[in-house]
Amino acid sequence: MTYHLLIEASDKTGLVHAISGVLYDFGLNIVQNNEFVDRHHKRFFMRTEFSGAIDSKAIASAIKDRLPDAIIQLTPKNDKKVVLMVTSEPHCLGDLLLRARYNDLEMNIQAVISNHDKLRDLVEGFGIPYHHVSSQGLKRETHEQKILEIIQQYDPEYLVLAKYMRILSPAFVSKFPQRIINIHHSFLPAFIGASPYQQAYDRGVKIIGATAHFVNDELDDGPIITQGVIPINHTFSAGDMAQAGRDVEKQVLAKALKLVFDNRVFIFGKKTIVFE
Amino acid sequence: MTYHLLIEASDKTGLVHAISGVLYDFGLNIVQNNEFVDRHHKRFFMRTEFSGAIDSKAIASAIKDRLPDAIIQLTPKNDKKVVLMVTSEPHCLGDLLLRARYNDLEMNIQAVISNHDKLRDLVEGFGIPYHHVSSQGLKRETHEQKILEIIQQYDPEYLVLAKYMRILSPAFVSKFPQRIINIHHSFLPAFIGASPYQQAYDRGVKIIGATAHFVNDELDDGPIITQGVIPINHTFSAGDMAQAGRDVEKQVLAKALKLVFDNRVFIFGKKTIVFE
Amino acid sequence: MTYHLLIEASDKTGLVHAISGVLYDFGLNIVQNNEFVDRHHKRFFMRTEFSGAIDSKAIASAIKDRLPDAIIQLTPKNDKKVVLMVTSEPHCLGDLLLRARYNDLEMNIQAVISNHDKLRDLVEGFGIPYHHVSSQGLKRETHEQKILEIIQQYDPEYLVLAKYMRILSPAFVSKFPQRIINIHHSFLPAFIGASPYQQAYDRGVKIIGATAHFVNDELDDGPIITQGVIPINHTFSAGDMAQAGRDVEKQVLAKALKLVFDNRVFIFGKKTIVFE
Amino acid sequence: MTYHLLIEASDKTGLVHAISGVLYDFGLNIVQNNEFVDRHHKRFFMRTEFSGAIDSKAIASAIKDRLPDAIIQLTPKNDKKVVLMVTSEPHCLGDLLLRARYNDLEMNIQAVISNHDKLRDLVEGFGIPYHHVSSQGLKRETHEQKILEIIQQYDPEYLVLAKYMRILSPAFVSKFPQRIINIHHSFLPAFIGASPYQQAYDRGVKIIGATAHFVNDELDDGPIITQGVIPINHTFSAGDMAQAGRDVEKQVLAKALKLVFDNRVFIFGKKTIVFE
Repeated sequence: MTYHLLIEASDKTGLVHAISGVLYDFGLNIVQNNEFVDRHHKRFFMRTEFSGAIDSKAIASAIKDRLPDAIIQLTPKNDKKVVLMVTSEPHCLGDLLLRARYNDLEMNIQAVISNHDKLRDLVEGFGIPYHHVSSQGLKRETHEQKILEIIQQYDPEYLVLAKYMRILSPAFVSKFPQRIINIHHSFLPAFIGASPYQQAYDRGVKIIGATAHFVNDELDDGPIITQGVIPINHTFSAGDMAQAGRDVEKQVLAKALKLVFDNRVFIFGKKTIVFE
Repeated sequence: MTYHLLIEASDKTGLVHAISGVLYDFGLNIVQNNEFVDRHHKRFFMRTEFSGAIDSKAIASAIKDRLPDAIIQLTPKNDKKVVLMVTSEPHCLGDLLLRARYNDLEMNIQAVISNHDKLRDLVEGFGIPYHHVSSQGLKRETHEQKILEIIQQYDPEYLVLAKYMRILSPAFVSKFPQRIINIHHSFLPAFIGASPYQQAYDRGVKIIGATAHFVNDELDDGPIITQGVIPINHTFSAGDMAQAGRDVEKQVLAKALKLVFDNRVFIFGKKTIVFE
Repeated sequence: MTYHLLIEASDKTGLVHAISGVLYDFGLNIVQNNEFVDRHHKRFFMRTEFSGAIDSKAIASAIKDRLPDAIIQLTPKNDKKVVLMVTSEPHCLGDLLLRARYNDLEMNIQAVISNHDKLRDLVEGFGIPYHHVSSQGLKRETHEQKILEIIQQYDPEYLVLAKYMRILSPAFVSKFPQRIINIHHSFLPAFIGASPYQQAYDRGVKIIGATAHFVNDELDDGPIITQGVIPINHTFSAGDMAQAGRDVEKQVLAKALKLVFDNRVFIFGKKTIVFE
Repeated sequence: MTYHLLIEASDKTGLVHAISGVLYDFGLNIVQNNEFVDRHHKRFFMRTEFSGAIDSKAIASAIKDRLPDAIIQLTPKNDKKVVLMVTSEPHCLGDLLLRARYNDLEMNIQAVISNHDKLRDLVEGFGIPYHHVSSQGLKRETHEQKILEIIQQYDPEYLVLAKYMRILSPAFVSKFPQRIINIHHSFLPAFIGASPYQQAYDRGVKIIGATAHFVNDELDDGPIITQGVIPINHTFSAGDMAQAGRDVEKQVLAKALKLVFDNRVFIFGKKTIVFE
């Protein structure tokens, strides 16, 4: 079995030696190792992938002994349990359904929740439950409460907003700290908020993009995981941009999920460390 | 000799037929032809490159007869007279000096003006006059007045801000309408204003860029000509971004000048039509 | 209704004027117009998109009167009838099924034919017939004959090889001249033939790619429609490259089909003219 | 002072622990650390950047004690002594002269050698010796002998072929093992040999590229350091490709030199490990 060891700690001399000592003592075979020191904040980040039959508690405990202030995460490489939220666009959703089915992404899609009923056939065709929770006539908190109840049935590790076009309340977001991932259809921080393609059209930019980020309390301001772009030109209407943008959106979201689910992403403040 | 015919007019049926009729009557050999209709504004744009020995006044007049409302520009393909303005960074400047010398850009650099004296050797090594106009102790209008006097000696067709790090006043800009080109070191409209790389670092973006644009009255808000990007990651300090960004800046500026000087760029409102 | 007019002819002065004259006489509203002259071969190519209620025979005939040697194609913008051929990889196939279903590609997938039975569930889940034609124990010509009989039921305009891993015989190819589109998993002409990712690994390249091309008699040598690339590095095994390459393959194939089905691609000799 | 420690060794458990132990014992402050294991060849590669006042012999010796079979290189971060070889194209040369002058590349250009006399002014304008060694009327070995004599005056660490358009003999190459870097104007292994842009034109590719590689005995077959590409289309003649390609060539060569001179590149067999 393969394991991922993630360590975050105050930087000091000898960290790598101390950690690699524990791994050596346990006779572990390191497959891949990445380190980064944020020199400005004197913060050390390390991701180690190793294989073997291990006693993960004993290892974590041995590291903790040597680095009492470290934040340690030691997990087997495995599929994440995920609930998707969508509105009515099929491109990101369809791409994720295919990738999950053919093991191109390490996730089990538990369910799909939508404020519309448009994508039911697609989702159910993949044998996955589809929950339509209309927001019509509901206050936001009521609508979110209904969604929450459904999510709780599945107990997912991550919520993925695959073109969910409503803004989630801070109360909702606070229930899933660092566990909600969104795809925004612009090259953030350009074109925050609604209708980014229309904004891009109005400004006359020559490149458009998409941004996958963790969701926090501020709109489109969460830690960025990855971004992608495509060139456009004066012949593109806002609608043409939206169409062209779909391919970037789905690639960027898939790439972000690949990184997060493979435990390659640290969140530090409002930024990420990503060991690609 | 090669000529560029640029026409902008209200869109209506038969424009291409009318214009191509004039070119046919004059027996011209069309090398390349591009058209675009802005359907939202019902505006027609056309660029035709043709060769031959021509009576350009007669041609323009014949087109004007058929399209009285058209804006017509008919010029021989030639090198543009350019004055460069810089502060202290050599990368864009050096790149332009090399390209001008080896005919990779259709421009004659008449002179370089700087508010510092750092780049004199580089410029004079290429046999081009260098004017140091310090801004120290001067009011902006006095400083700009001194610069203007130097520019007027050369009567350039374009001013190129090749990392000129001061903001030009509207009064100055108004003297060169649609004739000042700037390179901004961010992917506009993200990170307007000062220290865009620091802003990018603080936000934690995963891609940075550069934007070449015409200068108008609003800061970093002129019509965009072209943009470029490069991927970055968490290991980049703001300084690393600045260093990595230099290459994009010089490529983007050179590409923009290539397009503008080859008469491939229309300005329409605050946007551009670029026939690449 | 929207129409696409494609004209190929020997180049001479006045072509645009003659053609635009016909369109003007018929009162047509030109949406988009592209021209290209291959100066080396003195060959003229033009694609015009226009809308209106038209008598397409009369228009084609009027153009033919003025340009007797021209090759003229005038068709309504419509969905193409397509048969897909696959082996066992789902990524290109799944992407095309989604795009067809949600009108992101102008095609009707009539059927999918495979030499394996692995992808039946996926295809039938989209309500599309799946034909398994095993090649086991069959001579190539017998196997191809069986495939041909199935194809003939559907009378498709194009055959798309969406990771069909067998080489088609010249006899088979000759039945669909300029109508078979293949995705090859390398940046052709690098790594022709089998196992291009293994070849790329062995050579130690730093970028890999994919190529969509029309199929002709020579292996991987047909006219290229479009190509795409992604950066890789020393950490990629041949298997990692294959996985990373899947995303490029599906993007490149989808882009090529978008261009071909929107009648934007001319084949001229062993090259293409593509009006993007 | 900053140091680069490069270690290559047979892979086994405990390598990182052993090496980091030495660094810890010497009290060194690690700035950056990269490791890679080629699992197929069971080969371990590590690059460590650290700062401090060190006794480099003692450190290397301590590592050697623990890893007797390791290949160890421990050098201060410094500018490399380089001789450039060119023919008649100024774009790569000019770019390198500028970067060296403004410390954008860690190199000291000792001299430029050319088989033509075209670029003398450019080089001497930067205060660097220019040696014209005509090949006219000379046998290749005589010509190379003359070049060798000049190179020996400067005792460079690297030879950089910045568009040197002649093929070097194996005898010449063998004098500078793993120390000659070439820029080839195609996306190798496509279009090996002469006139790659003409080959690309004839094949009708939609992307062209450039490749920086170490030179070995086989033409265009040395270990690749980095590659770059740009999109082209049917409107590009072979000459247009050559012009467009110049920008990629100079970027790719500069990037390769940056990596090599910063001691980020291992050569292993005919491939490279590059710690970007």
